[in-house]
Amino acid sequence: MFKNTFVKLAQQVSGRAGKSIPPVKLAYKNMLKDPSTKYKPAETVNLPNRQWPNKTITKAPRWLTTDLRDGNQSLPDPMTVEQKKEYFHKLVEIGFKEIEVAFPSASQTDFDFTRYAVEHAPDDVGIQALVQSREHLIKRTVESLTGAKKATVHTYLATSDVFRDVVFNMSQEEAIAKAVEATKLVRKLTKDDPNQQMTQWSYEFSPECFSDTPVEFAVEICEAVKKAWEPTEENPIIFNLPATIEVSTPNVYADKIEYFSTHISERNKVCISTHCHNDRGCGVAATELGMMAGADRVEGCVFGNGERTGNVDLITLALNMYTQGVSPQLDISDINSIIQVSEKCNKVPIHPRAPYGGDLVVCAFSGSHQDAIKKGFTIQDQRKKDNHPLGSQWRIPYLPLDPKDIGRDYEAVIRVNSQSGKGGAAWVVLKSLGLDLPRNMQIEFSTKVQNKADSLGRELHSKEITELFRQTYNFTATSAAMDPIRLLDYSINKESQEKRNITAQIEVNGKVIDIKGTGNGPLSCFINALSKYLNVELEISTYSEHAIGSGKSAQAASYIHLGFRRDSDNEKIYRWGVAVAEDVSDASLNSILTTVNNSLQKQELVLPVSNKAAAAAAAAAN
Amino acid sequence: MFKNTFVKLAQQVSGRAGKSIPPVKLAYKNMLKDPSTKYKPAETVNLPNRQWPNKTITKAPRWLTTDLRDGNQSLPDPMTVEQKKEYFHKLVEIGFKEIEVAFPSASQTDFDFTRYAVEHAPDDVGIQALVQSREHLIKRTVESLTGAKKATVHTYLATSDVFRDVVFNMSQEEAIAKAVEATKLVRKLTKDDPNQQMTQWSYEFSPECFSDTPVEFAVEICEAVKKAWEPTEENPIIFNLPATIEVSTPNVYADKIEYFSTHISERNKVCISTHCHNDRGCGVAATELGMMAGADRVEGCVFGNGERTGNVDLITLALNMYTQGVSPQLDISDINSIIQVSEKCNKVPIHPRAPYGGDLVVCAFSGSHQDAIKKGFTIQDQRKKDNHPLGSQWRIPYLPLDPKDIGRDYEAVIRVNSQSGKGGAAWVVLKSLGLDLPRNMQIEFSTKVQNKADSLGRELHSKEITELFRQTYNFTATSAAMDPIRLLDYSINKESQEKRNITAQIEVNGKVIDIKGTGNGPLSCFINALSKYLNVELEISTYSEHAIGSGKSAQAASYIHLGFRRDSDNEKIYRWGVAVAEDVSDASLNSILTTVNNSLQKQELVLPVSNKAAAAAAAAAN
Repeated sequence: MFKNTFVKLAQQVSGRAGKSIPPVKLAYKNMLKDPSTKYKPAETVNLPNRQWPNKTITKAPRWLTTDLRDGNQSLPDPMTVEQKKEYFHKLVEIGFKEIEVAFPSASQTDFDFTRYAVEHAPDDVGIQALVQSREHLIKRTVESLTGAKKATVHTYLATSDVFRDVVFNMSQEEAIAKAVEATKLVRKLTKDDPNQQMTQWSYEFSPECFSDTPVEFAVEICEAVKKAWEPTEENPIIFNLPATIEVSTPNVYADKIEYFSTHISERNKVCISTHCHNDRGCGVAATELGMMAGADRVEGCVFGNGERTGNVDLITLALNMYTQGVSPQLDISDINSIIQVSEKCNKVPIHPRAPYGGDLVVCAFSGSHQDAIKKGFTIQDQRKKDNHPLGSQWRIPYLPLDPKDIGRDYEAVIRVNSQSGKGGAAWVVLKSLGLDLPRNMQIEFSTKVQNKADSLGRELHSKEITELFRQTYNFTATSAAMDPIRLLDYSINKESQEKRNITAQIEVNGKVIDIKGTGNGPLSCFINALSKYLNVELEISTYSEHAIGSGKSAQAASYIHLGFRRDSDNEKIYRWGVAVAEDVSDASLNSILTTVNNSLQKQELVLPVSNKAAAAAAAAAN
Repeated sequence: MFKNTFVKLAQQVSGRAGKSIPPVKLAYKNMLKDPSTKYKPAETVNLPNRQWPNKTITKAPRWLTTDLRDGNQSLPDPMTVEQKKEYFHKLVEIGFKEIEVAFPSASQTDFDFTRYAVEHAPDDVGIQALVQSREHLIKRTVESLTGAKKATVHTYLATSDVFRDVVFNMSQEEAIAKAVEATKLVRKLTKDDPNQQMTQWSYEFSPECFSDTPVEFAVEICEAVKKAWEPTEENPIIFNLPATIEVSTPNVYADKIEYFSTHISERNKVCISTHCHNDRGCGVAATELGMMAGADRVEGCVFGNGERTGNVDLITLALNMYTQGVSPQLDISDINSIIQVSEKCNKVPIHPRAPYGGDLVVCAFSGSHQDAIKKGFTIQDQRKKDNHPLGSQWRIPYLPLDPKDIGRDYEAVIRVNSQSGKGGAAWVVLKSLGLDLPRNMQIEFSTKVQNKADSLGRELHSKEITELFRQTYNFTATSAAMDPIRLLDYSINKESQEKRNITAQIEVNGKVIDIKGTGNGPLSCFINALSKYLNVELEISTYSEHAIGSGKSAQAASYIHLGFRRDSDNEKIYRWGVAVAEDVSDASLNSILTTVNNSLQKQELVLPVSNKAAAAAAAAAN
């Protein structure tokens, strides 16, 4: 049969030439033109003794959030003052100790907000402000920071060839002179000013954009700036080395950081800071490799807001460390509240697939993933109980982070659509009804779920799955009154070691009937009694049960797989059924009765009176 | 004054202890607990002779898109059959030559779609189907692919410790045996079957999940699989090494790829494929470093759809190559149509900050960025005209890719809100009105734009900016009738080498008046005439002009910065004005008149009659 199918299928395809196939557009307008005349590869660094690929990240960096500056300036609708305040307090709450709050010399709004931050920052939180290397702007910026416990003036200057050439028309020598001049001015106005001694002043200098600057020149200009500032080991100068635009694979950025870190003098008086954007989608990688290459400090934004493709996402960086057993020294345990503030103030949504923060990232739809996750939880629970050495470790397939660690629920983990297998629907039934379905019942039910999801063309919600389960298996606490057969009472007598008798009182169509049966236990007795009453051979294919809950409120769930010949065509069929009761015997008998009633309602089985009537009708017709 | 301000500000802050400061929550619930008991760092690879950091990407890999399989299975609402078809044809159109279309053994829908793909694929496009390593599923899968010109059967097996332990409870030896058995079955049913010779069969094996599998074991199981398959150099076996879950920094993944690439035997008969997910936000980086480490082939999805955080984004990878001067061999020149199909079929939006595809990634809001971009375009245009060697290169600050290369417009590049400086608004005025404003006029206008955006609390649209410009500078083609003074005609006579006379006919309140003036050119003559008429000293601070367009339709734009004493308080003020006309003289005189009229309407200047009336009224009042 297999071979024949092949041949048939092959014939179908070989005849396809005559069919109408949607035309394929083959106009490669730009992409196949050689782009090399227009774009040049990024320059690499000669680093013969490269060390960073041998390193791992073992401690948290100094974090700086620039949500309120670089983030805010990139928003189509920038934050209102009230939103900036709310955001600021959220950043403090997360545990950021360095916050860049504004570009105070650029507008009165930014100046005023800097004053607000200075006045409201806890003593251990440093306020940072960005400023161009120009005298009147620097003065205004220092003014805005005055009185802070800890403050950082952040100047920048174009150092890359493109920026110097295109934007400023400035030579390398001119750039160095300008950077030194700005640094000296900041120094005079801050740490050298007797009136400014209430503040611990730090200084940050950014060669722009470092990612596109010859690294030798970056070191040269920073040496000059360092000499002008004269940092100490206790309060090092911050050299922020921005990938203002991401221009290469992240290893090249790391090479540049390592070059800088190993070539700048007085390394102990220097704090190397990364500031990565995400133009090539590698902002997180560049930052992580940069940390391995020697960076001490990381600038970025919560959930990666920022110019164009965004600044690097600090939440991802922090939780990446967390999943490697390293504390990021930030509190992200309530990620939902951070999402809320970010979306409200930025008016930019977190993408459903954003690492950690996205709605879909702790979700599994596919059957094999769902199965694996379900098994993982079961084994972990068991190992915890057994004090197994692996019991305290997080080893759940497809979930690199325990969703509960960031305030998310397991409920969301497994979601069900037409791509889901047995595991997904079974998980929902387990979580919502407490029923841990036998494997084969899972398979049967998942087919029904798949069909339903397919026909609706969308994901099924938990409630829909539960409802489908109730309907499919006649599993309704309230429908007993509708059942063709109701069990009113029963008693079982032990006739011998191997033999039991049952007498059961059932109600059918308002009429109470006693039925009797024998067997080696309650189930076989009841099956025997029902078989005789219905005049059909009922057979138990498999049976299982488990407890739901524990202690006094525990209940028993019984599962039955019942075989019989269908009334309409005499074909042997099998049906699943389930019942829950406080008493184990009740549960098991009810599981049989539920299954029989379900088949009676579907006319796979018929009541004796109907049976006879049908036989009579058939006889009359012949 | 500067010092005083400092003292004042310092006093404000030092008094802050008494103020009500929003309380800072300091409950570090989970994050500051040491996570190391629960999470372990990923294992690293000992790679003493590591080569990949010295490499760059110089050619396109074999691309495989799994949008229709891995992508589709991760969607809350999977694609309908019609959507899968549309998506399939779009992928073919982009130029993908290997497409994983389904998990055909999992459902009839997937089987049927595989048949559709087989029947509609161009001859050079291989159809790939995923299947578990189980006999009946493999048979069904081969059946679904029968008749294809090129087909790949893709099997997978758990090889990582966690998966073998938690999900399958299978030893390494058992895993190898199972993988070999599955491979032999695929071989028997495909390339060894005489009835299957119309298809070029390829075979792909994925050790799951490679990122978490001891790399020595990955090599071991792949050696066994390779031996069972017996690949050729012409049709190598595909070893897909998935980061099914991203578990480490991307350099570790690259190390593993390089280890695999340098330890697998018969390397020329092996195609190494990456398949990266994005749990740590490094999917693009891991893939790129993986390519540098020896991978020949890349699996992923368009715009990074896929399980949880998504598969790696193929669009980003391709355009990353493109910006380095390497052709990705894919046609992404019409990115908007790809976005359209992706969003329609996946029902998952592209994030506004997604590299290349996001709405905001070619936008600049901040003033300094806008200035730099504007300068960049100006210099590039000039260099192109001059045949400068850099003229053909893309060197625009903040834009790593020419938006036009992917079908996007420059119009969207610069957008204006309260964070924008002079460059943004000036860019809009240049693009919409053709006016290249003088630098100081840009500064003045940008303040007005900032105030407007601040008061509205949102971005300003181009039309709003244009309208604000027209209002501010009385720059309206149709408002002449409303102007207090209208210029009807004028003539200029040359009295001597240095001296000109003007006679101008103006209309004021319906009355025609002749005014006369002298000067060394038309502007000074007209200023002189108007000064005498208005009884106020008008002074030209600066003047400039430029052509708009070229040839016959060219026009002249004239800008004037006019100084005078304000009527109300006698303070010296300066006002900008602009006028456009076909004739240069007309334009220059009109720029003056426009400015004067604007100030008359704002009562900064007054007409002689009002002037006298006011003087009379004042005299009467005294």
